[in-house]
Amino acid sequence: MPGNDRVWSGLDAAQVEALIGRHFPQIHVGGRAMLIEEAGAQRARVRLKKQERHLRPGGTVSGPTMFTLADFSVYVAIIATLGEAGIAAVTTNLNINFLAKPEPRDLIAVVRLIRLGRRLAVGEAQLFSEGAADMVAHAIATYALPSPSASGAAPSR
Amino acid sequence: MPGNDRVWSGLDAAQVEALIGRHFPQIHVGGRAMLIEEAGAQRARVRLKKQERHLRPGGTVSGPTMFTLADFSVYVAIIATLGEAGIAAVTTNLNINFLAKPEPRDLIAVVRLIRLGRRLAVGEAQLFSEGAADMVAHAIATYALPSPSASGAAPSR
Amino acid sequence: MPGNDRVWSGLDAAQVEALIGRHFPQIHVGGRAMLIEEAGAQRARVRLKKQERHLRPGGTVSGPTMFTLADFSVYVAIIATLGEAGIAAVTTNLNINFLAKPEPRDLIAVVRLIRLGRRLAVGEAQLFSEGAADMVAHAIATYALPSPSASGAAPSR
Amino acid sequence: MPGNDRVWSGLDAAQVEALIGRHFPQIHVGGRAMLIEEAGAQRARVRLKKQERHLRPGGTVSGPTMFTLADFSVYVAIIATLGEAGIAAVTTNLNINFLAKPEPRDLIAVVRLIRLGRRLAVGEAQLFSEGAADMVAHAIATYALPSPSASGAAPSR
Repeated sequence: MPGNDRVWSGLDAAQVEALIGRHFPQIHVGGRAMLIEEAGAQRARVRLKKQERHLRPGGTVSGPTMFTLADFSVYVAIIATLGEAGIAAVTTNLNINFLAKPEPRDLIAVVRLIRLGRRLAVGEAQLFSEGAADMVAHAIATYALPSPSASGAAPSR
Repeated sequence: MPGNDRVWSGLDAAQVEALIGRHFPQIHVGGRAMLIEEAGAQRARVRLKKQERHLRPGGTVSGPTMFTLADFSVYVAIIATLGEAGIAAVTTNLNINFLAKPEPRDLIAVVRLIRLGRRLAVGEAQLFSEGAADMVAHAIATYALPSPSASGAAPSR
Repeated sequence: MPGNDRVWSGLDAAQVEALIGRHFPQIHVGGRAMLIEEAGAQRARVRLKKQERHLRPGGTVSGPTMFTLADFSVYVAIIATLGEAGIAAVTTNLNINFLAKPEPRDLIAVVRLIRLGRRLAVGEAQLFSEGAADMVAHAIATYALPSPSASGAAPSR
Repeated sequence: MPGNDRVWSGLDAAQVEALIGRHFPQIHVGGRAMLIEEAGAQRARVRLKKQERHLRPGGTVSGPTMFTLADFSVYVAIIATLGEAGIAAVTTNLNINFLAKPEPRDLIAVVRLIRLGRRLAVGEAQLFSEGAADMVAHAIATYALPSPSASGAAPSR
């Protein structure tokens, strides 16, 4: 478990998956679309499996689907960094740029936290179509972190 | 139909609904969650019907659901303003601030376009829980507009 | 002075001006370019006087100048709302859209706070060229508010 | 000069400096605060020299100063990539996150373009205090690129 200093090697993918599964089972309603591939202190890598319902005409992935992946991936990096205390973190701001039309393939989000303060965490998510070099979307998300005294509270997400 | 000057009274809700239904029938897969209540030149009002799958623990509406509503509502205002030519518009940037936890009720998005250029449109979406005065989320979305020569092209959204 | 509930009629323009002048005299180095015209709970109106050094070729106002006006105006609304406790607020995020080329005239920023939480305030700034109806820029700024225990601390802005 | 494909090795720092100096001599009014250290296709590195007028109480660099550096640095990367045609590019959106209080030292902006389309370029700027590892601010800027037919027009920036 993370200490007060919040600096440690982080939870791995399976540990984050277990925590989220316990607190947010409904996130997987409709099938396990998002797969945590890697996690660690201040970082995460999440795959969105190609599914028909995420596609737009022409076979491309929809904007809301990319938003969902970016938001979730930053959340994964926060939990990997803070442990169970991160579960109650909530998004306060997300800015996303859609850069190129994604291919009708899996999407990969690569996240790093660029700020981890006492009250706010800021993460950057880079989204790629599997096997392609060019970024299809870029997002910056800010999460409000639970105050230490509130860490026992029910998740407010 | 809008002329070259792109200034007119706009399509109404039923006309926009018909255009979107013809070009994007898949947007309503899973039930008609989003209802266009009002539309006109540079403005729109869209209701997201409360549905179990949009809810988070505690009964609140999820962030991705609010993103989807904001993005779609700005799109509605663009089509109401530009007519069929607006169908091919694509989101390039969306910045959303989550301000308060929404109630487990319908969500209402009120949109106005604050810029309508030749190549870009910028819309502001204010989201409210039905019957409540405080905004629950605020979004600014930029859409790239199709160039006139490409207006006959298949929608690239 | 504001009580714990942070809901009151707010400081007026002269009171905010006096507070800022006392804590940030250097903001006016180079001349009093920014004039607080109105202030009150959750709102402000600030004028940027036309000055040669803010102009770009063609007589238009520069982007950094509009950023400065937007950021400052939201800060004014926070101080008008929170009183002296607001002085220590710091910008954490600012998203600005440049919508039209401003005229070589005074710029007016109209601000309202759309969220005032315990830890974060979010303000919207609409910028206009004096006497013109179309918005030239639109900004959303998030400020971190000082925690009550830190309210006696030196401004960290 | 760049060809139609817009893929080349880019202008170097001295070439970009010369172009900007020719088109925007007023950018250096008040002293040459911003120094282009490196430039090339889709990238730039710019130093903001520490100056008294940019400082806030406690010796920290102001938010507007960081905005100015981020905006300018992305502009440098665009010119390095597009050559003289890039001069007429104008900022349409800038999103900046302030992550940590900068030291009273030089600031370094490291930029890469993450999208270079026909009509829009998107650049990411990471800002650091000289010699420090942690980012002090992060910005994403979108520029509208001049249309080829308008490339002979006067800069509208």
